[in-house]
Amino acid sequence: MTHRWPPAPRPALLTDLYELTMAASYFAEGLVGQNDQATFSAFIRKYPANRGYFVSAGLDDALGYLEEFAFSEDDLAYLTTTGLFHEDFLAYLAGLRFTGDVRAVPEGRLFFANEPVLEVTAPLIEAQIVETCLLNILHLHTLIATKAARCVWAAGGRRLVDFALRRTHGADAGMAVARACYLVGFEATSNVLAGAVSGIPITGTMAHSYIQVFPHEIDAFRAFARRYPHRSVFLIDTYDTLEGARRAARVAHELRQAGHRLLAVRLDSGDMIDLSRQVRAILDAEGLMEVQILASGGFDEFAIADAVAAGAPIDAFGVGTRMGVSWDAPATDIAYKLVDYQGRAVVKLSPGKQTLPGPKQVWRIRVDGRLDHDVLGLRDEPSALRDGEPLLQPVMRRGQRLGPPTSLADARARFRAEFSELDARHRRLIDPAPYPVCKSAALEALAAQMDEAGALG
Amino acid sequence: MTHRWPPAPRPALLTDLYELTMAASYFAEGLVGQNDQATFSAFIRKYPANRGYFVSAGLDDALGYLEEFAFSEDDLAYLTTTGLFHEDFLAYLAGLRFTGDVRAVPEGRLFFANEPVLEVTAPLIEAQIVETCLLNILHLHTLIATKAARCVWAAGGRRLVDFALRRTHGADAGMAVARACYLVGFEATSNVLAGAVSGIPITGTMAHSYIQVFPHEIDAFRAFARRYPHRSVFLIDTYDTLEGARRAARVAHELRQAGHRLLAVRLDSGDMIDLSRQVRAILDAEGLMEVQILASGGFDEFAIADAVAAGAPIDAFGVGTRMGVSWDAPATDIAYKLVDYQGRAVVKLSPGKQTLPGPKQVWRIRVDGRLDHDVLGLRDEPSALRDGEPLLQPVMRRGQRLGPPTSLADARARFRAEFSELDARHRRLIDPAPYPVCKSAALEALAAQMDEAGALG
Repeated sequence: MTHRWPPAPRPALLTDLYELTMAASYFAEGLVGQNDQATFSAFIRKYPANRGYFVSAGLDDALGYLEEFAFSEDDLAYLTTTGLFHEDFLAYLAGLRFTGDVRAVPEGRLFFANEPVLEVTAPLIEAQIVETCLLNILHLHTLIATKAARCVWAAGGRRLVDFALRRTHGADAGMAVARACYLVGFEATSNVLAGAVSGIPITGTMAHSYIQVFPHEIDAFRAFARRYPHRSVFLIDTYDTLEGARRAARVAHELRQAGHRLLAVRLDSGDMIDLSRQVRAILDAEGLMEVQILASGGFDEFAIADAVAAGAPIDAFGVGTRMGVSWDAPATDIAYKLVDYQGRAVVKLSPGKQTLPGPKQVWRIRVDGRLDHDVLGLRDEPSALRDGEPLLQPVMRRGQRLGPPTSLADARARFRAEFSELDARHRRLIDPAPYPVCKSAALEALAAQMDEAGALG
Repeated sequence: MTHRWPPAPRPALLTDLYELTMAASYFAEGLVGQNDQATFSAFIRKYPANRGYFVSAGLDDALGYLEEFAFSEDDLAYLTTTGLFHEDFLAYLAGLRFTGDVRAVPEGRLFFANEPVLEVTAPLIEAQIVETCLLNILHLHTLIATKAARCVWAAGGRRLVDFALRRTHGADAGMAVARACYLVGFEATSNVLAGAVSGIPITGTMAHSYIQVFPHEIDAFRAFARRYPHRSVFLIDTYDTLEGARRAARVAHELRQAGHRLLAVRLDSGDMIDLSRQVRAILDAEGLMEVQILASGGFDEFAIADAVAAGAPIDAFGVGTRMGVSWDAPATDIAYKLVDYQGRAVVKLSPGKQTLPGPKQVWRIRVDGRLDHDVLGLRDEPSALRDGEPLLQPVMRRGQRLGPPTSLADARARFRAEFSELDARHRRLIDPAPYPVCKSAALEALAAQMDEAGALG
């Protein structure tokens, strides 16, 4: 049997086994009625190192997953072979669809630790069984959008391009990374499929192997310029970066004489700050002020900030692996916790992992057009008391989306606008000030009451 | 338009744009003949922190990708819209398949820094265009197999289960993680689809939400035991771990009276070393020596080693996020470099990123049944000179696999056998001793010769 890659998607089985065995137990206990409504809340408990905010992302994929959720015949055939499930439960799974409601923080909005980014209210089994995949999707997108937003902030207006695909954790990570980057302000991606699927601008330069195929470096530059006379970016570090810059300058003049223009040269190794200055000097001495410098290789928000602070004449950064795997914080502790069952608020008291009871809402309070603080409260407390903006919006009702999928361009504009309202102390790359999130009196009172009752177990 | 998740796989477009623009230039330059054979070598330059070996993994997916490589009509339609490609080149892409040869280190074998794990020899455009996806696949699998192998080593024979799916970087990372873990000796995974696709044993416990759905903790235990009287693992930390252990003990007695057996209890928060001792004491005092303790929550090789060193009575570890994202080293610097074109060895001299010329072979030298050292040499040097075992094996010829896909069970056995031959100093979790890799005289001579010539550019 030939192994195909990637395999055909089978999202209903892409779950932890316990989601299915818990569901089988609920089914056996008769917890399948319309009364057995549960609300689960997805949130990140703690900031990873140096993070002071999160960017909401991945909602569009999450809703796509919920809409398509269904077990195929192949899925059920496999489950039968495990010997873990009775026939009546498998028949139930065959007809199972997601029929619940979802409220969520729209993509591109900021959210903070302990604030729900998404809440599901649905019949217990449905709400439980979608946990693993929802977390997987939201985790990846918010993780990378947050990391990429830090890069955009560090770049201070210089252009950023996503070069991460070759070392993201798999194919769909590559897709999520391209989308999350664009959402927070990257200019383009090298990922062609992300261009096809999400309409993100695609871009690219050339590899060292391209240079090596030709007898001399300048032959490679000329060959590429013949095919792409107005889209060329020459990679100049294959043999000697400064020699490469001089050869690029020669071809840039040739292009100019033919009425074209060399877009840029690319640095990919060595001391980028020092080399960018020397290369800029070579290009300027040749009168090639319009030829830009793109730097790639090991950049993340910290290296970008260093280059910017040093005044390195780098016009654009190719940002790859370190952003694409969120190198300094490759995961968050995002969780999906039961907060309400049959209209009764519930909590968990595990040390270090306590949860807050009840379905929630977050109100964002602005003062003079700046983000001032958030109030974390209960979904159903009278919102008339708040002068803030409620963050969690209804996005799905009875398994159907409310409105068309998020437009990536809209989400991008939303991020840009809101991020500009966040004070610089919260945007700092190192040790950002915690953004103030207050609990409402009603939530505090309910949590205290549950804390006492919870000891009974 | 509804956004489906996950999207249909379109692997030929899942590539960096520059692979396609370089190919367009090669095509325009006429570099499409049978003479234009290139060899690319995939290798990891440097060990990430505390790594002293890598585990080969992902080859089966990599070959599946190469076998299926083809542009669909939709793919070509998108490429047309970019305005970057001429019609004759798009017509060429429409017929393009991978027709090259591949040699690789079989899955489950150890390999070391600077040793090729895979080499492609193919017509230039084919060999170049598959770079991004090949790297993406090999990177993820080797990264996780290596991290997971460290966990297995740390556990010293205790059982390990993969619980990473909810926070891996996407869906196919979850699949790769489950497979890579099993390859190096994990006992099972929670990922149901990995069970269906790869035949890996699946397992699971219960979530805190399950406990919270019932009025009292013990009601939850009893309900689960009713449905799974011989497969239950009770999660005991939702309210109070020691109380939870006592309640679990009561239900364990009830199960025993009915002729069944409670498999284990699970700890998921708090001081695992201390709690495991107290819980063991409670179970033992109740005569429940057969009930095991599973611990989960924040485990990686370091936390496992601490628990083992402290003699914590933990029988099995649920290993999740930190392993699944390779927390302390979420990427390697794996690269895919041109080493030969038209029978001429080539190199790159970029600072810190030099490459070694020529197609290669690695010979593994054993002394008294232990791994002694490797020799990195040229593919075509007389292997009769070596008493070692050549690591790179032909796995694909003219685009066709040589033999059936790797059996995961075989690869698992291979890893187990070879890892046991590696000295403990190379297996250490912190600052392992570098495993000796010597260059052959022929490779040294060629590299020195290229170094001189390369300065010409």
